[in-house]
Amino acid sequence: MSKSLERRDKLRVLLIEAAERAIAAKGLAGLKTRELAREIGCANGAVYNLVEDMDELILRVGSRTLARLDAALNLAESSIDASPTEMLVRIALAYCDFAAGNHELWRALFEHRMTQGKPVPEWALSEQMDLFRHIYRPLAGLFPKRPAAELSVTARTLFSAVHGVVTLGLEQKLIAVPIDALRAEIATIVRAMVVGLIAESARTPAMT
Amino acid sequence: MSKSLERRDKLRVLLIEAAERAIAAKGLAGLKTRELAREIGCANGAVYNLVEDMDELILRVGSRTLARLDAALNLAESSIDASPTEMLVRIALAYCDFAAGNHELWRALFEHRMTQGKPVPEWALSEQMDLFRHIYRPLAGLFPKRPAAELSVTARTLFSAVHGVVTLGLEQKLIAVPIDALRAEIATIVRAMVVGLIAESARTPAMT
Repeated sequence: MSKSLERRDKLRVLLIEAAERAIAAKGLAGLKTRELAREIGCANGAVYNLVEDMDELILRVGSRTLARLDAALNLAESSIDASPTEMLVRIALAYCDFAAGNHELWRALFEHRMTQGKPVPEWALSEQMDLFRHIYRPLAGLFPKRPAAELSVTARTLFSAVHGVVTLGLEQKLIAVPIDALRAEIATIVRAMVVGLIAESARTPAMT
Repeated sequence: MSKSLERRDKLRVLLIEAAERAIAAKGLAGLKTRELAREIGCANGAVYNLVEDMDELILRVGSRTLARLDAALNLAESSIDASPTEMLVRIALAYCDFAAGNHELWRALFEHRMTQGKPVPEWALSEQMDLFRHIYRPLAGLFPKRPAAELSVTARTLFSAVHGVVTLGLEQKLIAVPIDALRAEIATIVRAMVVGLIAESARTPAMT
């Protein structure tokens, strides 16, 4: 690799790390090209030699957040033998803890919208999709005969439901919830959803 | 009422309506004092004689959105006799339809954050809380012996879960979901949650 490419790669990493710190401190609204450029010691315009645009920069930070979330979920799964239901509860609680511990970076994953008309790039979509395996696996254990496409829908719905409880709980938009109470609510609702889905599939046995 | 107070009240309504149109068209980010002032024909600074600040303006628009949501939920409840479970399904579907039909205004309800350190005013909190009665009532029918404080937690959790499914479904952040598929998912997950919560309370009969 040429010296100038090496230097560019190094600066690019510094830029992404600076953006990560800015988002962690102040959210997406705290991301200012000028401040990032000053922090990594380059001209304002030079930032866009390092990333295509703000969307790419935010997605690269998101990629690091997702990798850490992935690691947290792997850890939650690795602890001991658990039933698929209890595995789903653990994963939901680990998700809640990660969101609480990385609030602004986690928020940014969902708050970011691409500049009008631009699609989310494939690499970023595929990283997001990949995380669903954490939910998909225990669900496949619960519903071994259910087709993959339906399991994917169920995985997404379960995730979205837990995400909603975590989001509104942490935002304290409606009522302030202490984290222990939030974790208890999450465990209750995940178990309820699983029990309900099992009961439903018992009524339509072809689907289980 | 003096002529000048009358004029102020009229302008204030025009301002809130202009802000509502701006948010509906472009989201919270589309709200610019200068454009609103031009639209209602007053000086930029005069906007802050009409509302305390941007937070109040956004909350007043939110108040109108909540009132329309309330009306939509009332309509969903009034149609025919339904079991408490099916009532919860209807309410969740009406919520989904409202969110889909008023996407930016509905998003703004959750996206808006008060300027640092300022609490949400009581009147706005109480309007938000009031809407929970739509979920609370059928839940009280399902769990007549459960204490009010616990029913409130359950109502909030159910709402948050449905909100998560609606939000991620409509944002199409993860996978594009056609609205009919989203409605089917919502009906499934609401029924599953209710069945699961009933099964759980059957294990702890004091709580039902």
